[in-house]
Amino acid sequence: MAKRQGRYTLILDEKPSIESFSSVAGKKEREGPLGRLFDITTDDTTFKKDSWEKAESQMLKECITKTLEKGQLSSEQIDYILAGDLLNQCVTSSYANREINIPFIGLFGACSTMALSIGLAGLMVDAGLAGRCIAATSSHFCSAERQFRLPLEYGGQRTPTAQWTVTGSGSVVVSNARRSPHISAVTIGRIVDLGVKDACNMGQAMAPAAAETIKDYLTDTGESPDSFDAIVTGDLGLIGSELMLELLMKYNINIAKQHKDCGIMIFDIDKQDVHAGGSGCGCSASVLCAYFLPKLASGEYKRILFAGTGALMSPTIVQQGESIPGICHLTEITSQ
Amino acid sequence: MAKRQGRYTLILDEKPSIESFSSVAGKKEREGPLGRLFDITTDDTTFKKDSWEKAESQMLKECITKTLEKGQLSSEQIDYILAGDLLNQCVTSSYANREINIPFIGLFGACSTMALSIGLAGLMVDAGLAGRCIAATSSHFCSAERQFRLPLEYGGQRTPTAQWTVTGSGSVVVSNARRSPHISAVTIGRIVDLGVKDACNMGQAMAPAAAETIKDYLTDTGESPDSFDAIVTGDLGLIGSELMLELLMKYNINIAKQHKDCGIMIFDIDKQDVHAGGSGCGCSASVLCAYFLPKLASGEYKRILFAGTGALMSPTIVQQGESIPGICHLTEITSQ
Repeated sequence: MAKRQGRYTLILDEKPSIESFSSVAGKKEREGPLGRLFDITTDDTTFKKDSWEKAESQMLKECITKTLEKGQLSSEQIDYILAGDLLNQCVTSSYANREINIPFIGLFGACSTMALSIGLAGLMVDAGLAGRCIAATSSHFCSAERQFRLPLEYGGQRTPTAQWTVTGSGSVVVSNARRSPHISAVTIGRIVDLGVKDACNMGQAMAPAAAETIKDYLTDTGESPDSFDAIVTGDLGLIGSELMLELLMKYNINIAKQHKDCGIMIFDIDKQDVHAGGSGCGCSASVLCAYFLPKLASGEYKRILFAGTGALMSPTIVQQGESIPGICHLTEITSQ
Repeated sequence: MAKRQGRYTLILDEKPSIESFSSVAGKKEREGPLGRLFDITTDDTTFKKDSWEKAESQMLKECITKTLEKGQLSSEQIDYILAGDLLNQCVTSSYANREINIPFIGLFGACSTMALSIGLAGLMVDAGLAGRCIAATSSHFCSAERQFRLPLEYGGQRTPTAQWTVTGSGSVVVSNARRSPHISAVTIGRIVDLGVKDACNMGQAMAPAAAETIKDYLTDTGESPDSFDAIVTGDLGLIGSELMLELLMKYNINIAKQHKDCGIMIFDIDKQDVHAGGSGCGCSASVLCAYFLPKLASGEYKRILFAGTGALMSPTIVQQGESIPGICHLTEITSQ
C-alpha cells in the first residue's frame, strides 16, 4: 500500500508494472531525432478521417489498440481507462474509447495528462482498486492550432517563443504483472500562476509549476538529482526549460545534468522550424513510450522522474485578460 | 480496503465520510422547489465578475470555501482536490483553485463530474492514499449557453427537448472522519453511444449510459431497488428519465418507485419554462449537497444510489455529424 512521504509524495510499495506501452506519431515527428523509435508513424496525419478532431481520435484509438496487442491483452482484461486530451470537452478521448467497452475515467491536465493518468493508474493498481489500467493521451497539431490559435488556412505567423504541438499519442497498461519498468512514486502537483499572459509562450507559463513539483518531490523524499538517470519534463521547450532550471537554483537545486525535456528532444529544433520546441499532451506521452520506457525496460536506465507539465488555460479566458495557470504532476519510474 | 464485487463495482470497506458539504445556486434555482435548501444563493449571477467564465469560477471558489468553513477545516488539511466542469479546458476548476494551494486532480466527466469526483475521492480515502479530499464541480447557464449553443444576446428559441443548464455548484470533503454520511460503493461507467445526434436532447443521449451503469451496480451487488430510499440520476430531465426507465425494464429492472432526477427536482418544470428540466454539472452537484446529503446525515434516508450522467460531446464534433456518447458514474451513499 502507498505511503505518504513528506507533504505531497506517495511511495508505491507494490511498484506496479508498466506491462505494455506504445506510441504513435505523425510525419514531422518521424522526421525528428526520435523518428524511428515510435511504434506507428504515418504520412497521412488525417488518419483517413474527414476532420482533424476525428483524426486525433483515430490516432489515440490505434495507439491503445497497439498497446493491448503488444501486451497480448484484450480489453476485457482492463479494469479502467484513464485518458484526457487538449480538445474542447476532451472529445479525442471519449470518441476514441466509445467502442472500447472499458470503464472510463476522464482526466484533464492539459499537457500534463500523461503524467497524471500514469500516476493515478499506478495509485489505483498499487491500492488494489484495479488489476490493470490503461493510461493514455494524445495531441494533434492541426486540431490544436485551430482550436487554440488560428485555423491553419489563415497562415498565421508564429512567435519565436511559440511551441509546435506534437501530432502523437502514447498509451500504457499499468498492472500488477511484476514486469519492468515500475511506478514507484507519485507527486500530484498544485496549480501555480506567476502571472504569465502570453498564450504563445506556454513554456514560460508552465515552468514555475515544474519547478515547484520537482522541488516538492526532492524535498519530500530527500533524494538528490544524482540518483536519477534523467529528470524529464513534458514540454517546457527551450525557454521554459531554462526558466525552470533558474527557478530551481533559487531553491539550491541543480538538475541541469539530469534534465531532459520531451519538447526539446522530439524535434531537431534548428532544422525543423519549431521555434521553442514541441508541446501538446502527445509530446511527453509519445517520448515517454518511445524513448524512456524502453530504456527502463532494458535496464539501461535505472530510475527517472517523469514530470508532465500543463497550461490550464482556454483561449476564451486568456482573451479576457487572465494569466495562465500551470500544473506539473510527477511520476517516478524505475527499472526494478 | 476496497473489494471488487462483480465486474464493475468496488465496495468500500472503510466507508469514507462525507465530512462537510455545501452548495451555491443562482436566482432561478432559488426560485425553484429546492430554493431554500442551498447554502448560498445570489441575485447577481455575475458574482461581481466581468465575464460569465470568471463568474462561474468565482461561484465554485465560494462553494469550496463554504465547504471548508462548514467543516471547520483549512486548505492545509486537504490532500487533494478533484474537480472538473463543462467549460473548454475546464477553466472554471483551474481558475477557482489557483489560489488554493492544494494538489489538483482535473477530471472531465461532463455532467457526471460530481459522481466521478466523489467516487474517486472515496476510493482514494478508502485506500489510504489521502486523508481528506475535496470533490467539486459547477455549471453556469450563461457560460454554457454561449459555449455549447448560442450567445444569450442572440435570443435563440429552445426546443421542447432542451434542458436548462443550472447555475450552481456543489462541493464535499471526503475523509476518514467517521461521520455520516458515508461512501460505500463506486461503479465507474463505460461510454455508451446509441447514435443520438441531437445536441438539444441531452437527456436522450445520456439515458442509455444511466441504464447500463445502474444495471451494472445492481447485477454486481445482487441488490434490489427496494433497498434504496432513492436512486438518483443527475440530469436526465423528463425525456431522458422516461427513456432510462424503459431501457431498464428491458433488463427486468423496475426503479420507477425509487427514481429521482436532479434535473426534474431543481426546477418547477411547468412554471419555470425550463422545457425538459435542468442540466449541467452543477445540477446534480447542488441537489446532492442541498437535498440528499442532509437527509442522509440526519438519518431520514438510509441509503441512496447517486448516478451522475454526462454527455461527452463538443459542439465542434456534433457539427461534424458525430453522435453523442454518454457516460454514467455511480456512487452509493449511506447514512451509516
